[in-house]
Amino acid sequence: MAFGWIEEQDRARREAGLVRVLRPRPASSSLLDLASNDYLGLARHPEVVEGAASAARTWGGGATGSRLVTGTTALHAELESELAGFCGFEAALVFSSGYAANLAAVTALAPHGSLVVSDAGNHASLIDGCRLARGTTQVVGHADPDAVRKALATHDGPAVAVSDTVFSVDGDAAPLAALADACRAYGAGLIVDDAHGLGVLGDGGRGAPQGAGLAGRDDVVATVTLSKSLGAQGGAVLGPARVVAHLVNAARTFIFDTGLAPAAAGAALAALRLLVREPERAARARAVAAELHERLTTAGLDAVRPDAAVVSVRAPSAEEAVRWAADCRAAGLSVGCFRPPSVPDGISRLRLTARGDLSREQIERAVRVIGETRP
Amino acid sequence: MAFGWIEEQDRARREAGLVRVLRPRPASSSLLDLASNDYLGLARHPEVVEGAASAARTWGGGATGSRLVTGTTALHAELESELAGFCGFEAALVFSSGYAANLAAVTALAPHGSLVVSDAGNHASLIDGCRLARGTTQVVGHADPDAVRKALATHDGPAVAVSDTVFSVDGDAAPLAALADACRAYGAGLIVDDAHGLGVLGDGGRGAPQGAGLAGRDDVVATVTLSKSLGAQGGAVLGPARVVAHLVNAARTFIFDTGLAPAAAGAALAALRLLVREPERAARARAVAAELHERLTTAGLDAVRPDAAVVSVRAPSAEEAVRWAADCRAAGLSVGCFRPPSVPDGISRLRLTARGDLSREQIERAVRVIGETRP
Repeated sequence: MAFGWIEEQDRARREAGLVRVLRPRPASSSLLDLASNDYLGLARHPEVVEGAASAARTWGGGATGSRLVTGTTALHAELESELAGFCGFEAALVFSSGYAANLAAVTALAPHGSLVVSDAGNHASLIDGCRLARGTTQVVGHADPDAVRKALATHDGPAVAVSDTVFSVDGDAAPLAALADACRAYGAGLIVDDAHGLGVLGDGGRGAPQGAGLAGRDDVVATVTLSKSLGAQGGAVLGPARVVAHLVNAARTFIFDTGLAPAAAGAALAALRLLVREPERAARARAVAAELHERLTTAGLDAVRPDAAVVSVRAPSAEEAVRWAADCRAAGLSVGCFRPPSVPDGISRLRLTARGDLSREQIERAVRVIGETRP
Repeated sequence: MAFGWIEEQDRARREAGLVRVLRPRPASSSLLDLASNDYLGLARHPEVVEGAASAARTWGGGATGSRLVTGTTALHAELESELAGFCGFEAALVFSSGYAANLAAVTALAPHGSLVVSDAGNHASLIDGCRLARGTTQVVGHADPDAVRKALATHDGPAVAVSDTVFSVDGDAAPLAALADACRAYGAGLIVDDAHGLGVLGDGGRGAPQGAGLAGRDDVVATVTLSKSLGAQGGAVLGPARVVAHLVNAARTFIFDTGLAPAAAGAALAALRLLVREPERAARARAVAAELHERLTTAGLDAVRPDAAVVSVRAPSAEEAVRWAADCRAAGLSVGCFRPPSVPDGISRLRLTARGDLSREQIERAVRVIGETRP
C-alpha cells in the first residue's frame, strides 16, 4: 500500500516516546509563556498589531505574486531599507520565512565548485541550505574557528563558512569575530543566521553581527527572522548590495515563492520602529536571561549560561523532559521541551525564553515551578 | 575577495539581458492587473482584509514559535479543518508558504531507498523537495503517465510520483486520473501540487484533485497555496490523517519553521468561506481564461489553451518578451513576463492571469493592448 511504510516509523516513534501532536492554543490563556520566541514580548504590542491590521487594509490579505512580479510593495521596500539600516548592512531582502532566507543565502552563495564549512550545531534550515547548494559541504565541530580555518585551508576556489550567531537549543553564541578572522584569512565569505540575536544582542538589539563589529563588511552576510523579536513572520538576508542583487536573480526561494504578506511586513516594521525608539528592550531581555540562569543554577538545576535570551535546562531523558514540561504546564507555566531529533546531541532539555517583558514576580514564579517539578 | 565570483555571473546575466530588478508597487495604481496570482480577485476583498486584521487583533502579529511549541493557534486548527473539508481530504497541515509545504510533502514521503518520479515541468519547490529527499529521483517527460509507469516498474520499495496539477508557466493541466492509475498499479503514492488549481478547478473551486475524483484517496496527497486564489500567504498539505500526522513528526520545514502568521491564516479562512458561499467564482475565472485565449488566438497570437486561469502567450525571444511586457505596462496593463531560468523550455512568454473579477471591458482592453504592442 502507498505510504504503508509510515506505520513502521510511527511505531518506532511511539516506542521511543517521541510522538509529537499539535496542541492548538486559545487566544487568551492564564499560562505564563516561557516557550515562545517572542523575546521582547512584542507580538501582541498594540503598535505591532496595528501595523499588521493597517497593512492588510492598505495592501490586501496577500502580496499576490512572486517578489519579481507583483509581490514587491512599497511596504516591502520600506521594511528592507529600515531593517538594513538598523542592523548596519548595506541592503536587505525580505522572504516569507527565515527558513526560506537561509535556503536562499546558502544556495545562492555556494556555487558549483565552492566549499561550505558548516557548524555541527547549525539550524535545520542552514543544513537544508547546504544540502541544496551546488557546492560541497564540510561539517566542522561546534563553535570551532580553528576547524573552520583548517577546512578553508584545504580548498581552492570560492568558500563560505556558515553558522548560527546564537544556537537555538542551548542559547550559546558563536565565536563570530574569530570566525570572521578565519574567513578573511582565506578570502572566504561568512554567512551567519542571527534569528536569535536580532532584538537581543548588539547595540539596542541591532544583532550579533553589529555587536561583533561585522555588520556592513563586504564579506559578511547575515540572515534574520521577523518572527521572533519582531513578533511577526518572515525572514531577511542582509549584506552588501551586490550580494543582495545576486540573490534577487539567483535564489530560488526568492524567485519562486509568493512575497511576504503585507500584514507580516507591517507588523515587523512596527516592531522595528518600536525597538529603535525603545533600545533598552534588548538589554532587558539579556538581564532576564541572566537572572533566570542564576536563580535556576542556585536552585541546583543544570542550566546553560545564556549568551542571549534563551535559557536551556538539561533533563535526564526525553521521557523526563516531557513529564517535566507537562508538570510545569499543569502548574501554569508554558516551557519549551526539546527532544531528539530536534537536539543535535540527543540530550533532551527544557528551553526557556527570557522574555524582556517578564516581571520580577513572573521570573520568580517560573523558577519556583521549574524547581518544584524537577525530575 | 569573498563573493568575488558574483561579478562574473552578473556580467553574463547582463549580456544575456536577463537581469532582474525589483519594482516596488504603490498601494493604488491605475494599471490593469493581469500579472498577479490573485485568481479570484479576493486579496483586497473586504472580508479577506477584515479576516487578516481581526486575526492580528485577536492573536497578535505572529505565531510566536514553531507549530510544535506555541505556533499552533485555534485559528490554525480551524483553517486546517475547513480547508481539508472543502477540498475533500481527511486532514490538512498549514505551512508558512506553499514552497515549505512542497518541501515537506516530498521530503517526508520519500524516505531512504524510495523512488520519486518527478514531472520535468514541476515547480521549483517540488524540484527542491526532490533534491532534499533521501529517496532517488527520476525525472520523466512532461505530462507523461506512461513514463511514470515505466519508472515505477523499475523500482522495488516505496515510491511516489510528483506533479503540479496545473503548470504555472503554460497553465496546462496534468493528466491526474492517468497518473493516479499508474501509481495505484504499482502501489505508489501520488503527490500533486494544486497551487494553481485550488479556487479555479473542481466543483466550486475545490481543486483539481477533487475534480479528478482523487480527493480523499488513501494514496493521494495534495499541496495547495493560500497565496493565490485565497489572497493570503501560506501553504498546506492535504491527505490521509496518518500521512499528516507523519508530517507533523518528520517534516523539517514544519518542525523548524515559525507557524504561519495569524493574519495570513485569518485572511485565507475568510477567502475560503467566501468561496464556499459563492462557488460561481471558480467557473467565472475559467470562463475569463477561455475568453482571453479565444480573443488572443483570433488576434493571431500564439496563446496556449488554458486548463485553469493562466493564459500563456509565447514571445520570440527574452528581449522581445521584456520589451512587450514593458510596452503593455506603458499602455496601462500589467502582465507577467517569464524568461529563462524561470521557464523549463527556454521559451519566453507573457503570462496572463484570468482574474475571475475582470469585467468584459477589462478583458477587451487587455487583448487590445497585447495585440497593439506585439513583437
